[in-house]
Amino acid sequence: MDAAEFRRRGKEMVDYVADYLENIEQRPVYPDLEPGYLRSLIPNEAPAEPETYEEIMKDVERVIMPGITHWHSPYFYAYFPAASSYPAMLADMLCTAIGCIGFSWAASPACTELETVMMDWLGKMLQLPEHFIAGTHGHGGGVIQGTASEATLMSLLAARCKAVRRVQASNSELPEAEIFSKLVAYTSEQAHSSVERAALIGGVMMRKVPTDNSYAVGGDMLKKMVEEDKAAGLIPFYFCATLGTTPSCAFDHIAELGPLCNKENMWMHIDAAYAGSAFICPEFRPLLNGVEYADSFNFNPHKWLLVNFDCSAMWVKKRADIIGAFKFEPLYLKHENQESGRHWQIPLGRRFRSLKLWFVFRMYGLSGLQAHIRKQVGLAKEFESLVRADKRFEICAEVIMGLVCFRLKGSNELNQDLLKRITNGREIHLVPCQLSSRFVLRFAICARTTESRHIQQAWHHITQLTFELLQEPNH
Amino acid sequence: MDAAEFRRRGKEMVDYVADYLENIEQRPVYPDLEPGYLRSLIPNEAPAEPETYEEIMKDVERVIMPGITHWHSPYFYAYFPAASSYPAMLADMLCTAIGCIGFSWAASPACTELETVMMDWLGKMLQLPEHFIAGTHGHGGGVIQGTASEATLMSLLAARCKAVRRVQASNSELPEAEIFSKLVAYTSEQAHSSVERAALIGGVMMRKVPTDNSYAVGGDMLKKMVEEDKAAGLIPFYFCATLGTTPSCAFDHIAELGPLCNKENMWMHIDAAYAGSAFICPEFRPLLNGVEYADSFNFNPHKWLLVNFDCSAMWVKKRADIIGAFKFEPLYLKHENQESGRHWQIPLGRRFRSLKLWFVFRMYGLSGLQAHIRKQVGLAKEFESLVRADKRFEICAEVIMGLVCFRLKGSNELNQDLLKRITNGREIHLVPCQLSSRFVLRFAICARTTESRHIQQAWHHITQLTFELLQEPNH
Repeated sequence: MDAAEFRRRGKEMVDYVADYLENIEQRPVYPDLEPGYLRSLIPNEAPAEPETYEEIMKDVERVIMPGITHWHSPYFYAYFPAASSYPAMLADMLCTAIGCIGFSWAASPACTELETVMMDWLGKMLQLPEHFIAGTHGHGGGVIQGTASEATLMSLLAARCKAVRRVQASNSELPEAEIFSKLVAYTSEQAHSSVERAALIGGVMMRKVPTDNSYAVGGDMLKKMVEEDKAAGLIPFYFCATLGTTPSCAFDHIAELGPLCNKENMWMHIDAAYAGSAFICPEFRPLLNGVEYADSFNFNPHKWLLVNFDCSAMWVKKRADIIGAFKFEPLYLKHENQESGRHWQIPLGRRFRSLKLWFVFRMYGLSGLQAHIRKQVGLAKEFESLVRADKRFEICAEVIMGLVCFRLKGSNELNQDLLKRITNGREIHLVPCQLSSRFVLRFAICARTTESRHIQQAWHHITQLTFELLQEPNH
Repeated sequence: MDAAEFRRRGKEMVDYVADYLENIEQRPVYPDLEPGYLRSLIPNEAPAEPETYEEIMKDVERVIMPGITHWHSPYFYAYFPAASSYPAMLADMLCTAIGCIGFSWAASPACTELETVMMDWLGKMLQLPEHFIAGTHGHGGGVIQGTASEATLMSLLAARCKAVRRVQASNSELPEAEIFSKLVAYTSEQAHSSVERAALIGGVMMRKVPTDNSYAVGGDMLKKMVEEDKAAGLIPFYFCATLGTTPSCAFDHIAELGPLCNKENMWMHIDAAYAGSAFICPEFRPLLNGVEYADSFNFNPHKWLLVNFDCSAMWVKKRADIIGAFKFEPLYLKHENQESGRHWQIPLGRRFRSLKLWFVFRMYGLSGLQAHIRKQVGLAKEFESLVRADKRFEICAEVIMGLVCFRLKGSNELNQDLLKRITNGREIHLVPCQLSSRFVLRFAICARTTESRHIQQAWHHITQLTFELLQEPNH
């Protein structure tokens, strides 16, 4: 395919994409097929000779689309949102075309520099403390990671390195392996599975802190565990707080937890993967109070800030902490300006992801982004009202952002049955969670194009299935 | 921006991208600016209100383009290639639009399933042993990672987990931390820095194996080290072989190393990040002989197989080894068909990257991809001949693929001076490496559009700068 054909096919693809997104409501949100469906639809081997583009696009409809869970359908209420917007898509096209691999300043100066400045823009939008802003001579700054999992892992590794150095400074004979075996990390029992995974990768112990009745961790609970562990000869070194947990969007009490972590020389990382985007609105910013005690903070613009995956925003108080954890300088990466390079992440190579932030921030403006957050929170509140008005149902956690946790009053089995009917109906899609041993349905406002009518329709559908379910003799 | 505006802007962007790539030769390949250049060109904060799209695109030329190192310019000979092709770009547009986050089968069945089948296609193109092919009931299979660094890390973590289980099976009282402290991983002294980094992340020792005079590791060298370490009470558990090292594209002798690793119960991972693509050509496939002994194998289609970044292809002999290393099943990820899900990587979320493989394999066919590899190897041979014909220069490592390592006969300083002139001239761009303490210039065939005339022109430029350099009184 030469440039001339790309011009033609590219424009067709732009129309295909626009058609797909404009008409997405007409597709079933969740596919109806069995695992392994795809293999029999395509050959066993790559073709020896080129095929035509028409054949491939025909197969997109025949093979791919029937197997897609449509995350951008306004009938999709599962997991958390995957952000998407037209400006981000345009930026992504440009990013792909430039195709630089931004592993150092010299590998493409604009890639490193736009990222630094965009992370400052975003940090200011969140009113982050000054020490997180790189500016022209700050010690902290932001970096774009692929996912929140990677940010959590990087923070844990930096904390591990810092802890080992601190312990060795006062006891230089202690071997690293022995220190590792005494290190303890903490996180909420409601934290995302990737936090526990980070500890497993880093080879350190992780303890789950029990939550209060709003599913949040408070200072007292962590304090008690830290004291017990210290008395047992262990070394508490890291706490990962969550702002907006995956099951119920609960907020750990960081203003209490932060001073404790600081006092105990524990690294505090804040994972606000989903909820972080909302902190650009002044009315939600108080939930971030206490961030001034954190060593690192992360959230995913690719969840709720209209920037397509992947783009996870991480800030650190001291760049040196995170760079120092892994310093390697082979000659083929050496460069006069290498200090401006970035080795703040697991992969060495990286796309020019800050272009997406730049396009989205400028095409929406702060006001447009705030409007998006507020609209989606409004839709969640609307759904909450519908649930509360129906005495057969209960709300299971405070609705603060775009997530509503609800269930039928009654057994877990009853609710499992309801979810099964919803899933099999394929009109809307949502997933469950577990709260206090109860099986709960999560209704997350996801697609950018979700409107009040979709919420009303979804609730109508749920109540209809509920009616049918409760007619059954066994209930 | 609504769909109608996206249709217009998207088509403009397609033309912008085609124009950029068609006229890339007219841009200086390497930017002429100082670190920090960008910050003063744009505001300090995100705009409160939306800006127009025209303003942004004007700024792409004003702010971004002057700071780009143009990886797809035929004058770019640095690092290794970053693959790029029009079919991959079209697939990427589709991937962005679908925007599913493929962390489980249910999250988008097509995303998981196309990946499995594409990895089988690619595995067959490389004639990988049957046990790496998932098929419908194999124990192995392939997964797309973001980068080779992530693949190396995953293999090391899986190996670490397996080693700990094995040791504990015969000595159940040994604490994990003590086992960790005895584990030893090995890799070539010529291996990429990310291999050492993986060991650092995993908290295990890594020893560098000396190479022979072709910069490759042989069986004897590894055997000697393993025996010494075992005698010292350590537990060798992992060896990362390199096929096509970053400095000089050397090939470790895996047919010797594999049986040794198998005998010693050491996981053998093969990192063929750059060179792996060439194994689709029968004439290069013998370099992969010995892969049958490997537990995992990885290379980057995003380097040399015309698939834009990121797309790193990893196969494992036993899926259970790599899945078993991290098994977490929170309820919000549970699904009836979860066994078909994929948690084979560090990040939980992932793009629908297999679409790029599918488009590229079908639009080029195996024959087209082989032609691309052969053409680029031919260009490297052409450059090698030019160097060999000039008695002032020497070739520093055998030219097997698309990389030529060369230098001026004489001091390292002389060669550093030459490289500085090349870099400052900005007509071509390349980076150095170190081989046997000598400062060497790396000339890698990178852009898809590089032709013989570019090679001739590059050599002409280098000899001209050499002429000027050697005129200087101090040389």
